[in-house]
Amino acid sequence: MNQWKNLNELTSYQKLGQNGRVDLTCAMAGEEGTVRVKKYNAPMAAGMTYYYAAKQVDDAILKDLCALAEEAQLASKFEELYNGAVINTGEKRLVLHHLTRGQLGGAVNADGTDKRAFYTEQQRKIAAFAKKVHDGEIVNEKGEAFTTVVQIGIGGSDLGPRAMYLALENWAKKNGCFKMEAKFISNVDPDDAAGVLGTIDPSRTIFILVSKSGTTLETLTNESFVKEALKNAGLDASKHMIAVTSETSPLAGNSDYLAAFFMDDFIGGRFSSTSSVGGAVLSLAFGPEVFDRFLRGAAEEDKLAAGKDPMTNAAMLDALIGVYERNVLGYPATAVLPYSQALSRFPAHLQQMDMESNGKSVNRRGEAVDYPTGPIIFGEPGTNGQHSFYQLLHQGTDIIPLQFIGFNENQAGMDVTIQGSTSQQKLSANVAAQIMAFACGKQDENRNKHFAGNRPSSIIIGKQLTPEALGALLSHFENKVMFQGFLWNLNSFDQEGVQLGKILAKRVLAHETDGALNTFSELLGI
Amino acid sequence: MNQWKNLNELTSYQKLGQNGRVDLTCAMAGEEGTVRVKKYNAPMAAGMTYYYAAKQVDDAILKDLCALAEEAQLASKFEELYNGAVINTGEKRLVLHHLTRGQLGGAVNADGTDKRAFYTEQQRKIAAFAKKVHDGEIVNEKGEAFTTVVQIGIGGSDLGPRAMYLALENWAKKNGCFKMEAKFISNVDPDDAAGVLGTIDPSRTIFILVSKSGTTLETLTNESFVKEALKNAGLDASKHMIAVTSETSPLAGNSDYLAAFFMDDFIGGRFSSTSSVGGAVLSLAFGPEVFDRFLRGAAEEDKLAAGKDPMTNAAMLDALIGVYERNVLGYPATAVLPYSQALSRFPAHLQQMDMESNGKSVNRRGEAVDYPTGPIIFGEPGTNGQHSFYQLLHQGTDIIPLQFIGFNENQAGMDVTIQGSTSQQKLSANVAAQIMAFACGKQDENRNKHFAGNRPSSIIIGKQLTPEALGALLSHFENKVMFQGFLWNLNSFDQEGVQLGKILAKRVLAHETDGALNTFSELLGI
Repeated sequence: MNQWKNLNELTSYQKLGQNGRVDLTCAMAGEEGTVRVKKYNAPMAAGMTYYYAAKQVDDAILKDLCALAEEAQLASKFEELYNGAVINTGEKRLVLHHLTRGQLGGAVNADGTDKRAFYTEQQRKIAAFAKKVHDGEIVNEKGEAFTTVVQIGIGGSDLGPRAMYLALENWAKKNGCFKMEAKFISNVDPDDAAGVLGTIDPSRTIFILVSKSGTTLETLTNESFVKEALKNAGLDASKHMIAVTSETSPLAGNSDYLAAFFMDDFIGGRFSSTSSVGGAVLSLAFGPEVFDRFLRGAAEEDKLAAGKDPMTNAAMLDALIGVYERNVLGYPATAVLPYSQALSRFPAHLQQMDMESNGKSVNRRGEAVDYPTGPIIFGEPGTNGQHSFYQLLHQGTDIIPLQFIGFNENQAGMDVTIQGSTSQQKLSANVAAQIMAFACGKQDENRNKHFAGNRPSSIIIGKQLTPEALGALLSHFENKVMFQGFLWNLNSFDQEGVQLGKILAKRVLAHETDGALNTFSELLGI
Repeated sequence: MNQWKNLNELTSYQKLGQNGRVDLTCAMAGEEGTVRVKKYNAPMAAGMTYYYAAKQVDDAILKDLCALAEEAQLASKFEELYNGAVINTGEKRLVLHHLTRGQLGGAVNADGTDKRAFYTEQQRKIAAFAKKVHDGEIVNEKGEAFTTVVQIGIGGSDLGPRAMYLALENWAKKNGCFKMEAKFISNVDPDDAAGVLGTIDPSRTIFILVSKSGTTLETLTNESFVKEALKNAGLDASKHMIAVTSETSPLAGNSDYLAAFFMDDFIGGRFSSTSSVGGAVLSLAFGPEVFDRFLRGAAEEDKLAAGKDPMTNAAMLDALIGVYERNVLGYPATAVLPYSQALSRFPAHLQQMDMESNGKSVNRRGEAVDYPTGPIIFGEPGTNGQHSFYQLLHQGTDIIPLQFIGFNENQAGMDVTIQGSTSQQKLSANVAAQIMAFACGKQDENRNKHFAGNRPSSIIIGKQLTPEALGALLSHFENKVMFQGFLWNLNSFDQEGVQLGKILAKRVLAHETDGALNTFSELLGI
């Protein structure tokens, strides 16, 4: 039976803080640095590796982190989760996103069905639908093929699927599996929908309406916006729209939609990229085989995350080091820096996944905790970030731990050699150089050119950003966030912090406000 | 004569910290909240207003902030800057981006020319060139009109112009001044250029190469990538490329380019949106008249920023409150949250502008400072962010000050009414509701649904995001960052922190490394 204790109730956490601090300017210099890189790494799926040599850890600290993992029962809590316990204590729900891509434990039954069977059935139905669209069996009113797919959704129905689509778009074009262009409408700002509609041919477009409850106001509003545009173009909306929703929602079994695919309450929006929420758009865009490869990568990585030893469990180790940085070293944020343009929106997805899961001040029992929890997450792809906010990362007054991601090969297979190196070599040289610049710094008598160093980073290195590698990356971060939630004793799977704004916005729209809220509303012209 | 002192040497700063703290849960509730909103605001250009009622300030604190502005000589330091002093002490350069849009002081002569005349001459030349492209006087080899413009640049040559383009794209379409679609290539990752080239017709495209020195490795590499693609398509690159560079660069007066427009060393990349760097792409995309309106908005806002009284100088006041939050209240970050999809990349631009300018640990004389300087800047448009990281903003363990932006009207003029309100009303209702939810919170016995409140925010409200409003917004933040640099006694106009990574990357490419750098390079396949 797992014990759910606060972080600062754990003996191993108290001990952890008593270790001496690691100074990376020494530890990463010369031969010792080489030894660390060769020693401090953990395998990941799809041939990737997690390197943490440039983190402020050593053998003693790692030993204490392993003891912390043991005392916090990270492995057996994950086991409890994937075997179908009610881990989402606030909403009293199971947490089943891992089941969309594999089965780590026993059968999980809920709502009177085997949930693994339910998720794979949805995938099968999506695959069959996508095939029919690609093969010209499902066409528009004029018998023309669909060329574009537009996802209408917000939050987890937008960020994850959008980041995954962008991550594989060029790979799919290169590898002959690019079937349809995808676009996304999310914001209730009418300029978002208007902007997207201005760049597509609606007569050749399938729209995917994604809302678990079928009641998300932004999404229903954008649906109406799109339906109005289809009507104005003389098109029958019901021949252009499909739904991804729960079986009990008003969108299910509704003749307004060509088809409906299902999700359920056991998968939170920010963990839904491997469910129908990501499945419909990615299968339509790249074909179901590519989506299946993406799931396989995630499933492989999940298996590694189920391991008990943190030293061979990259997600668990990453989580432990992150808690050491946040709670012992006191760093406020983590920057996510993929050296891959295809991952341009991956940091925005992680920002939701992490900050919405662990940006909380009460534990699973609803008691206030007295230690910092989830950090700020932000990031942009390198090398772009180097020409932007890296100045502060190198020489600012706060230390911000960094999470790099890099690949040996690009996706498009096009490259040029300038000044003796290819673009890919320049890209990779930059990420290697940054890790060392942050760790070791550089002494300079001119203090303006002085780099203090000792700024920690890790890097995940893979061969190429394939569907499998993307699935593994996604799983890594999902499981990292889950393990950190366990360590902080949070419920990482609800989001009560977004409710108050919704309630007040409804009051504004109903003109039920007074005081400053009323004044602001008037200023904003409502 | 201005005195350049560290923040903690100022008497008024010491006094500032002795004020009682403002509790927004009380101050923003009921009638007092209304009074604060009506009282605590400052005018901006283009009909916009900066509201800071939901900041943790009161009359006493504001009085001390005014005293701090006086003692730190903010107004006269700005005066010194716009009259051509060497404010960039590290690189011994003038700081002249304000001159690209107006003249606040006397004539500034440098390089043997009147700099205001120089910048307006470049604008005139760009306008004439753009007119010829739009009128079909400059065409491709087949005599066809150009339909697309691609900017090749990184950092300030990318983020600002890209954010400004996206901000006005739908406005221009709606108002009949959309001339050419613009795209951007920045990352040295070859997949960036390959991705953009895969979505355009190169035969109908003008490429703008933007590099002040003419030696930025990423940009020259991407130029070669594009030239190779043009050659493979049987096109003459010199008929498709223009340059924005300094007069002394190898790109100037070079027959490889259709035309060259100039910038100089007195405008840093992150402040170059109103120079030729933004001017060429925006004038080609929307016409020179729109670019001129954008400049006029910035110039109007600059005039307000030159005012001596912080209470009517929104940029100065915003800067002062930000320093109070960072140095007295100890907050680590600021989130930028525009409720406008058109401003989707505006936070990324501000992230560079702010973090690269003030992410520093030494003062203008190169002496270490012993107080926090530039915060982390991040953000995404609302309402999207509400469904992402707002959970942490509302209920996380750290307090993060917020900068909202909202407008009365959308840009595209398309909207739908659902459940009794338009999308625009829903958008505006949400931002009003968020301000109050963050400020006042909500007591709940269920601690999981409890909101502590007292989380500060400001909002800039405008009628519509027009070119003038965009220029004013840009100027506001540029001047805010400048004033904060004055307060922290930093040189906000160099970026020595990006040099070490560049040097190490060159060593990697020359295979001159050893130790861990060599090992990482091998792992990354260089």
